[in-house]
Amino acid sequence: MEVVDRRNEILRAALELFAAKGYRSTTMADIGLHLGIRGPSLYKHIASKQELLVEIMQTTMERLTTDHRAAVATSSTVDVQLRRAVEAHVRFHVNHTDEAFVGTREIGSLDQPFRRKIVTQRSRYERGFRTLIQRGSDEGTFHVSSPRLASFAILDMGMGVAVWYRPDGPCSADEIADAHGDYALRLVGARDLPGGSRGT
Amino acid sequence: MEVVDRRNEILRAALELFAAKGYRSTTMADIGLHLGIRGPSLYKHIASKQELLVEIMQTTMERLTTDHRAAVATSSTVDVQLRRAVEAHVRFHVNHTDEAFVGTREIGSLDQPFRRKIVTQRSRYERGFRTLIQRGSDEGTFHVSSPRLASFAILDMGMGVAVWYRPDGPCSADEIADAHGDYALRLVGARDLPGGSRGT
Repeated sequence: MEVVDRRNEILRAALELFAAKGYRSTTMADIGLHLGIRGPSLYKHIASKQELLVEIMQTTMERLTTDHRAAVATSSTVDVQLRRAVEAHVRFHVNHTDEAFVGTREIGSLDQPFRRKIVTQRSRYERGFRTLIQRGSDEGTFHVSSPRLASFAILDMGMGVAVWYRPDGPCSADEIADAHGDYALRLVGARDLPGGSRGT
Repeated sequence: MEVVDRRNEILRAALELFAAKGYRSTTMADIGLHLGIRGPSLYKHIASKQELLVEIMQTTMERLTTDHRAAVATSSTVDVQLRRAVEAHVRFHVNHTDEAFVGTREIGSLDQPFRRKIVTQRSRYERGFRTLIQRGSDEGTFHVSSPRLASFAILDMGMGVAVWYRPDGPCSADEIADAHGDYALRLVGARDLPGGSRGT
């Protein structure tokens, strides 16, 4: 097996175990056992449990940020941009429930300087939404008294999806992403709801 | 010290430790140490760590449910009822951040039949919101395609407050509760936003 594949395999096992039983309760031995790799062999690929958590958190923030930028780049109209950004946010949380769970729960398990770094990345991600909302308000498209509170509310309702979403549940990922696009535009007081995937 | 006081003190210490380091990583010895009580004395008041978690979770659900009922009882108009219920939901999460955190994170740490019981209580609480939204839709006050998705979104954005709220932050609990009342009514497509505490 390629070294990179093995490393990814270890990351996936760590993610699964961190999500299931928490970072503190997971040992490197558990991760090895999960994969049928002995300790010494595990340490050829990874220096520590902390390194695994850092990499999981960083990859999560990088993906969210990349998806956000791609979503915003699809339009120059602020309401469509907000809708697409919200859809991307929801889609990520539907497709990465373990990452979302670990990302929220284990911030406190990160050592410095990693904790500070991830918190900064999260703030920057939130600011992307806040900036859109502020711009929409300035342009008179949105009507909201606190862009900060509105961006928190929109992000929180999207993150919540990761907790209750089930692939075999009554709503598809597309339906949920679309509904959240509507909710976000309503929440910021947009008069029209442009660009819904179901033609609203 | 009264037996009841001591029991409450143990519950508070358990809550604090479960929130800080997780249920699995907290031992009864940690709880005793935190309070300066020896193990045997601790077991006079409480049978097990699981009993503490169950009681914390049950008390949380009972308070949320009581607050919800009181909020809904303040009006017979569905939009005001939804606003008051959202305000109560947000206020709880502002004032009980540890309970909120443990309540979300440790569902999987509950043994049966307690897990089933708490999950049922949470579903019932969610249904209270869904029923209001459905009634508002039936009456033509709200305009929403999925009362279920809308209730999840409203509850999730309120629960999110527990994660980022700081007593010394830029927004007071009242401001946040009020903003969320607006957001919820906007989200369900209410045309007017009645009953805002700031006179909107």
